[in-house]
Amino acid sequence: MSFRLTILGTSSALPTSDRYPTAHVLNVYERLYLIDCGEGTQMQMRRYHIHFGKINHIFISHLHGDHFFGLYPLLSTYNLMGRKTPLHIYAPASIEEMLNRHLEDFDISLGYELIIHPLAGRTVKLILSDKRVEVFSFPLKHRVKTYGFLFREKMADRNMIRSKIAEYHLTIAEISSLKKGKDILREDGEVISYDEVTLAPPVPASYAFCSDTGYFPKLSSFVAGVGLLYHEATFGDELDALARKVGHSTARQAATIARDAGVGRLLLGHFSARYMSPETLEEEARQVFPATDAAREGQSYDITS
Amino acid sequence: MSFRLTILGTSSALPTSDRYPTAHVLNVYERLYLIDCGEGTQMQMRRYHIHFGKINHIFISHLHGDHFFGLYPLLSTYNLMGRKTPLHIYAPASIEEMLNRHLEDFDISLGYELIIHPLAGRTVKLILSDKRVEVFSFPLKHRVKTYGFLFREKMADRNMIRSKIAEYHLTIAEISSLKKGKDILREDGEVISYDEVTLAPPVPASYAFCSDTGYFPKLSSFVAGVGLLYHEATFGDELDALARKVGHSTARQAATIARDAGVGRLLLGHFSARYMSPETLEEEARQVFPATDAAREGQSYDITS
Repeated sequence: MSFRLTILGTSSALPTSDRYPTAHVLNVYERLYLIDCGEGTQMQMRRYHIHFGKINHIFISHLHGDHFFGLYPLLSTYNLMGRKTPLHIYAPASIEEMLNRHLEDFDISLGYELIIHPLAGRTVKLILSDKRVEVFSFPLKHRVKTYGFLFREKMADRNMIRSKIAEYHLTIAEISSLKKGKDILREDGEVISYDEVTLAPPVPASYAFCSDTGYFPKLSSFVAGVGLLYHEATFGDELDALARKVGHSTARQAATIARDAGVGRLLLGHFSARYMSPETLEEEARQVFPATDAAREGQSYDITS
Repeated sequence: MSFRLTILGTSSALPTSDRYPTAHVLNVYERLYLIDCGEGTQMQMRRYHIHFGKINHIFISHLHGDHFFGLYPLLSTYNLMGRKTPLHIYAPASIEEMLNRHLEDFDISLGYELIIHPLAGRTVKLILSDKRVEVFSFPLKHRVKTYGFLFREKMADRNMIRSKIAEYHLTIAEISSLKKGKDILREDGEVISYDEVTLAPPVPASYAFCSDTGYFPKLSSFVAGVGLLYHEATFGDELDALARKVGHSTARQAATIARDAGVGRLLLGHFSARYMSPETLEEEARQVFPATDAAREGQSYDITS
């Protein structure tokens, strides 16, 4: 499996006895990407056997405590574990000053480098490209600067169709050329097209994370067609007005974004502590977008497209 | 039961999958005192049914993250819960600036007052006296300014011995006078002494908390005779040199303090992550002071003297 998402927390600002604040771990071919880092994230990582050493990139959607309070202790833990590998943090720009002051306050000298990548921009923006994945940020609509993240698996090369090699008596030189994506023009004028003799690779996996946001229609264009969309659903229908006021969404609004964006599946989270169980939120969303699930602590989701 | 201690965390700086960083709750006749506040304290409070609203006093021994990282989120949670009651914090003086900057960073406007009581002093010092308890701070020996805390139940009045009322034909005026602690001198020269006609109340309960400290003999004078002593025991005998270097104690050193102070019972905690179980630490301490237990998450201890 190429993309595997593990949910560490599904609470909104107020944790409950069984819901932790927001943190997700995306496993892309055994590279782990940590997305948001609420209080207790490192405890949840231990509980669900997340390998600390495989995380080199942390994404923080915004600087509200329930998405961020676990970062200080996690940085401190990495230091105690003797980490040497640089750690990349993608977050609103003011995080740098906050982290530096904090390290100074606590007289912590990190044995590894922190590399801060400040988030900005009014649309979808590439912020990281490695061998396997491209990561984009995009703006959300919340009370402070807040960004969503989109992880898209890099498209693999097309594969040669074996039977076509015999059919066209392809030479090694021709195969090499085709593998570079070039069509072949033979001396007799015959054209052998790259698309005809190769097979498309599987659809790349993609995952979008929308932590805290009020409803705005344009969001669906930012996450169009993703395999799995995580979208906050702090409230149910009955608190629609409150959601608008505090820059959050109802489950139905999350589903509306999912439907309009034509995503594969929708995952809800960031549930208000007033809901003992997220079932009613799940039901309200399914009325608009049936392929919806409420996220639960410790559950993993395979993302196949 | 007058004093009841609940342990929320027993790890040292590096939490493990089943050990949280330091936090204790002392229940004194249903007033709760929170002592240290490592990451995840509010989750542990929920897990072990600690009533948030009954805490008005928080004691922070020192400003290392594993004793303190849970405070920001707890203050935020109190705000979200609509707290109005002032919250008293007893901590090293620099906490005030850190908290203020932090609240500013996160644009949090607290709906309740924070009252900071800076710790200082080279010996035992009274820092709080209410109806039921006196609380004292005393210095520990760690890498940064660190304080221990001593909670001592206020001595109740002596009780009249009913049979003495008949024996001496005590008048109402005489009883009233005796209850004020005065001896009676009758006209015929007879003396009725307060001590003779009253019974001593039960021995007051007391609890001392020594979070992070290297061994120093004077500590036993600060905690002399307490009913229950909590003392950190980060390491076992084999790491005696490391303990000295980093300002921590071995279990045996904790037991030495307990023995020299003549305490009732000793509770160990702040265990290094290298020990899968605290059993060997417990055994090493018991060689010096048999009435020793290793603290465990969620356990409560009744303190009767």
